[in-house]
Amino acid sequence: MLDDQLAFLTEIDALKGIVRASPIIDKSRRENTAEHSWHLAMYALILGENTRASVNIDRVIKMLLIHDIVEIDAGDTPIHGTQGLTEQVALEEAAADRIFGILPKKQGEALCALWHEFEAANTEDAKFAKALDRLQPLIQNVETGGGTWSESEVTEEQVHERYGPTIQTGSVVLWKKAKELVSKHFSS
Amino acid sequence: MLDDQLAFLTEIDALKGIVRASPIIDKSRRENTAEHSWHLAMYALILGENTRASVNIDRVIKMLLIHDIVEIDAGDTPIHGTQGLTEQVALEEAAADRIFGILPKKQGEALCALWHEFEAANTEDAKFAKALDRLQPLIQNVETGGGTWSESEVTEEQVHERYGPTIQTGSVVLWKKAKELVSKHFSS
Repeated sequence: MLDDQLAFLTEIDALKGIVRASPIIDKSRRENTAEHSWHLAMYALILGENTRASVNIDRVIKMLLIHDIVEIDAGDTPIHGTQGLTEQVALEEAAADRIFGILPKKQGEALCALWHEFEAANTEDAKFAKALDRLQPLIQNVETGGGTWSESEVTEEQVHERYGPTIQTGSVVLWKKAKELVSKHFSS
Repeated sequence: MLDDQLAFLTEIDALKGIVRASPIIDKSRRENTAEHSWHLAMYALILGENTRASVNIDRVIKMLLIHDIVEIDAGDTPIHGTQGLTEQVALEEAAADRIFGILPKKQGEALCALWHEFEAANTEDAKFAKALDRLQPLIQNVETGGGTWSESEVTEEQVHERYGPTIQTGSVVLWKKAKELVSKHFSS
């Protein structure tokens, strides 16, 4: 059992080599998915108080730690990209089977179920996790003076369309604040 | 309150720029502290079952997410280094005051207490967290065919001295497995 667990922990080291579109805040390079996952877990830990009492922050943290592990095989899907989503979903499903399949059966199935819950976004925990996964790159863009919005010539209306529904579904308070920051960014 | 929380989450982005001695497993570069913290939280999530029932894995995960945030101001302390430890402790204490001090008072104090608990390593949770913080770089070294051990000409006996007590205190099972891996590494 322990050998399989260590093999999994070694396998997921590859997430440190998956590069996302978002910049880190000092603008020296793009963010990788491992450090993004850490940052999101910190978002959950810190902002947990700003959400509905029905959200279980310990579960949200676990969900965010594993939410992008499939990118080891399937790569990142940038929010402003144009790639085929159906194909991406199939790639990610196969990745989840392979990677969580390295673990002892029961543990792998439990984490795979948690990943599916995140993807489906039907539970309160997953809705909050999804909201944070949209909020963090928004903040990275604001803090770097534009980030991927400048690169892709994204307008304020497009930011509202692409980030608004997911963040608002997870937390009305966080979307209210995000809108303020976005408005300030685009008017400066 | 939310403004202070977002300021903290922006501040800690700097952890992505703190470079550690340990390599990532594809050997392309050294690991940074943000992705190390993610990897450790995953170690706790996956290896939680291999420890005493008295350990609260949700607390251990939180502890590991924040355990190195002080490095933003104080830098990393390599296990095979020769720097002055007293000075390092003072730097880290000042860093904890400044960085956790960005948060709303009650929340900042709670996280600072959790960080002190990790540092003191007197509780079951902190002992297990410390064990994982020693185990992960050991695995990185084994998986890269030597890593910091080759660089610093560290012997098998020194590995036992420098990693053994901390890992064994947190988990006898994990140290037994680690010793096997170390023995295999040094005899190959």
